[in-house]
Amino acid sequence: MAELPDKAEHFIDWYLEAVEVAGLTDKRYPVKGMNVWTPYGFQARRLLDGLMIRGIEASGSQAVEFPTLIPQTEFQKEKEHVKGFDAEVYWVTRGGATELDIPLVLRPTSETAMYPIFSIWIRSHKDLPLNVYQIVNTFRYETKMTRPFLRIREIHFFEEHTCQATDEAAAARCRSNLVTFQGIADALGLPFVANRRPEWDKFPGAYYSIALDLPVGGARTLQLGTIHHYRENFSRPYEIRYEDLSGEVKYVHQTTFGLSERLVGATVAFHGDRRGVVFPTSIAPFQVVIVPIISQTLGPVALDAARALAERLRARGVRVRVDDSEDRPGAKYYLWESRGVPLRIEIGPREAAAGTVTAVSRLGEKKSLGPGPLDELILQALADFDKALSAQAHATFRKCFSVAYRLEELKNSTTVRLVSWCGTEECGHQIEQAIEGAVLGVPEGPLPIDPGAPAECIACGKTQDTRWALAGRPL
Amino acid sequence: MAELPDKAEHFIDWYLEAVEVAGLTDKRYPVKGMNVWTPYGFQARRLLDGLMIRGIEASGSQAVEFPTLIPQTEFQKEKEHVKGFDAEVYWVTRGGATELDIPLVLRPTSETAMYPIFSIWIRSHKDLPLNVYQIVNTFRYETKMTRPFLRIREIHFFEEHTCQATDEAAAARCRSNLVTFQGIADALGLPFVANRRPEWDKFPGAYYSIALDLPVGGARTLQLGTIHHYRENFSRPYEIRYEDLSGEVKYVHQTTFGLSERLVGATVAFHGDRRGVVFPTSIAPFQVVIVPIISQTLGPVALDAARALAERLRARGVRVRVDDSEDRPGAKYYLWESRGVPLRIEIGPREAAAGTVTAVSRLGEKKSLGPGPLDELILQALADFDKALSAQAHATFRKCFSVAYRLEELKNSTTVRLVSWCGTEECGHQIEQAIEGAVLGVPEGPLPIDPGAPAECIACGKTQDTRWALAGRPL
Repeated sequence: MAELPDKAEHFIDWYLEAVEVAGLTDKRYPVKGMNVWTPYGFQARRLLDGLMIRGIEASGSQAVEFPTLIPQTEFQKEKEHVKGFDAEVYWVTRGGATELDIPLVLRPTSETAMYPIFSIWIRSHKDLPLNVYQIVNTFRYETKMTRPFLRIREIHFFEEHTCQATDEAAAARCRSNLVTFQGIADALGLPFVANRRPEWDKFPGAYYSIALDLPVGGARTLQLGTIHHYRENFSRPYEIRYEDLSGEVKYVHQTTFGLSERLVGATVAFHGDRRGVVFPTSIAPFQVVIVPIISQTLGPVALDAARALAERLRARGVRVRVDDSEDRPGAKYYLWESRGVPLRIEIGPREAAAGTVTAVSRLGEKKSLGPGPLDELILQALADFDKALSAQAHATFRKCFSVAYRLEELKNSTTVRLVSWCGTEECGHQIEQAIEGAVLGVPEGPLPIDPGAPAECIACGKTQDTRWALAGRPL
Repeated sequence: MAELPDKAEHFIDWYLEAVEVAGLTDKRYPVKGMNVWTPYGFQARRLLDGLMIRGIEASGSQAVEFPTLIPQTEFQKEKEHVKGFDAEVYWVTRGGATELDIPLVLRPTSETAMYPIFSIWIRSHKDLPLNVYQIVNTFRYETKMTRPFLRIREIHFFEEHTCQATDEAAAARCRSNLVTFQGIADALGLPFVANRRPEWDKFPGAYYSIALDLPVGGARTLQLGTIHHYRENFSRPYEIRYEDLSGEVKYVHQTTFGLSERLVGATVAFHGDRRGVVFPTSIAPFQVVIVPIISQTLGPVALDAARALAERLRARGVRVRVDDSEDRPGAKYYLWESRGVPLRIEIGPREAAAGTVTAVSRLGEKKSLGPGPLDELILQALADFDKALSAQAHATFRKCFSVAYRLEELKNSTTVRLVSWCGTEECGHQIEQAIEGAVLGVPEGPLPIDPGAPAECIACGKTQDTRWALAGRPL
């Protein structure tokens, strides 16, 4: 029951151990970077999938599923894209004992699987917009150190692909995706910044890329997802064209929106503490754990009360677990805290008789509930927990940023930095060298903290056309 | 708007065209046997997944997900199993430009992915039973002609894997799986026979295999799924052991239960007719389509009524679509019939004024509903449709079987045949030669028709220990 490593000092060690003690994944599968989703981890993932599905379908997207394997010939049609992925794809070269004529790629992402079919589906302006998404696994032959949920070789992936009639419609879809993501992030209690990535760091083949970044302590950031505007960069090589109202044949403008199991990792990384994982109720496999305090002398009254309460809560749609194992209460508290359950309900024999319970939130708030309608009071406590978690997260978030005015200040940054930047690649690279990280880009919408008007470029000192950019160290 | 090919005469042509006109899948993906799930087909599949998930979780199974790729070394541990799959697996041999030291197999099924981990998870009798399932895609390098949903190279697959303390507990899990499947089949309106496969046709590595077979016209059958008892055949090579109450270390007994997207194909194949697909309401992407009859003179009253009715139905949980396109009503009727929508609601301007509608079920029953609570009446009509579909299916099912008393009768069988069989492999092969198909096995539970007591073996004439077996031509 030792505490985890210090999160601020030893973030990666802390993260790995938090994931481990929560039992979200099993890393002992005999292929590096390909982990097993345990029943507990899978539940969180399924709930996350539900958030993504409801969010994207509300914005008018339909689910599809394209094959996992992509012929080499299709994969190589868009040149920038191939260059970006060539070194990190898995190749299927044999079927049974037969060498395949055309090797197949395990999809690293599905542009090259989908777009040949889009070119058949789309004929006329009546076929637009085409908004489809899929939730599938993707594969990357990752050569760096792997980390559960964050850097892996088989990735549970959400990808929307859309075709729009015009550049403006595609830009509007990107903005709509940002609104959808805001809803998902809110449900997870996660603040974020949407950064327009610099030219040299955009997605291979994109016209522009907006990345959704989360600070996770120090200057470290985690990319939670991306929204890309492709313009005609893929529709030209894949010949996705439509006839407009006047009969003219045009190329579609495309967008994509990608999220992944990283959101599970981000939730762990951002909300977790010395005792382990903290789940928001939206994706908590159990929202409530009830621990009856069994008494030899007073009989099973607490256990009966626990089970009856659990049934009432289930009828209200609450995911609840009664821990009636033979372990000591202290061991149970530790277990369910490390696994991130938002609310623990303790019932002793006297409480059972009085119709009260003790509620302890995962943020440490303890209070007595009842007598009265316990299911109502617990629903309220869950809502309060989410509000408190979100408030705590936003307070932490604001402390994750500070302004840097000179390149030398960037060296040992203990926060993500706001820097005034002229926008050139040359100055960008100077900033990246100084912080030993990356220019995350220029935020879309409000800045995470208010630094006033941008001043001279931190690298070249120019004052014209400068803007605030974020610099940090992506994990 | 031509009718489809005759189902009885040209079953495969009919099936392919029914799938095609319904738009359930797109076969134009540039890898043979790997098809695209369109939005419409994906909806049916998602609803089917829901049936499987609710069924198996009600029987105490938990969702997990194991990696797609299996190292060659693990894959080859159980000898019969490897022999069964060696010729039909895809091999990943390269990552980026690197030849992999140990090639990886794309899972054809997950025994060899899961069981090394089960051997870590299971230590004591307290860890049993272990009942877990996953819904994932599996891969087979199919060399025969492929068919959508029926014989493909990337398969949407449901697989439960369990570990039990004893042989009897494993047999009981198999029976429980059969009950679960009965629930799924009932929801699809599909009758079936559970056949204990003959020794020479069981799953590679199984102790016994129970296959769930559906007759689909003539002597043809479709295997809908399987339930296997493995005994210790995998737990020995994978060393999955537990300590029992007395401290003795034993091997677990294992079972599996497999279903797949074939259930979508089976639903099409069994219920479909000259006009196309017929979906039961359980997996119909749209349960109701409303066709307003737009009138130039009477204005949009029918369209308004259609939309209002759709909203009321949605509030009751009905999946409903209003077809307000500019096509002629006849074209709309044809479209939604071919796509299998259980109930069509037509609303003309006069009906809209009178608060009535015309309801036409996909089985051809036409009646006027209302005035009155139309949502209630439509819910009732949907329930009636399912009942009628199931009754029709069971009547058809009984006609799919007949008894054969002599081998010569098997040659041009126009039904699946019940034959009295001594149980030997030699006689089994004679039966298979005669019917130009397979001995499906001995049914578990009641026979599909009542042929009286088994007589002498159809092949050798022995009368001792004979039993009724089914023989047919598996697709």
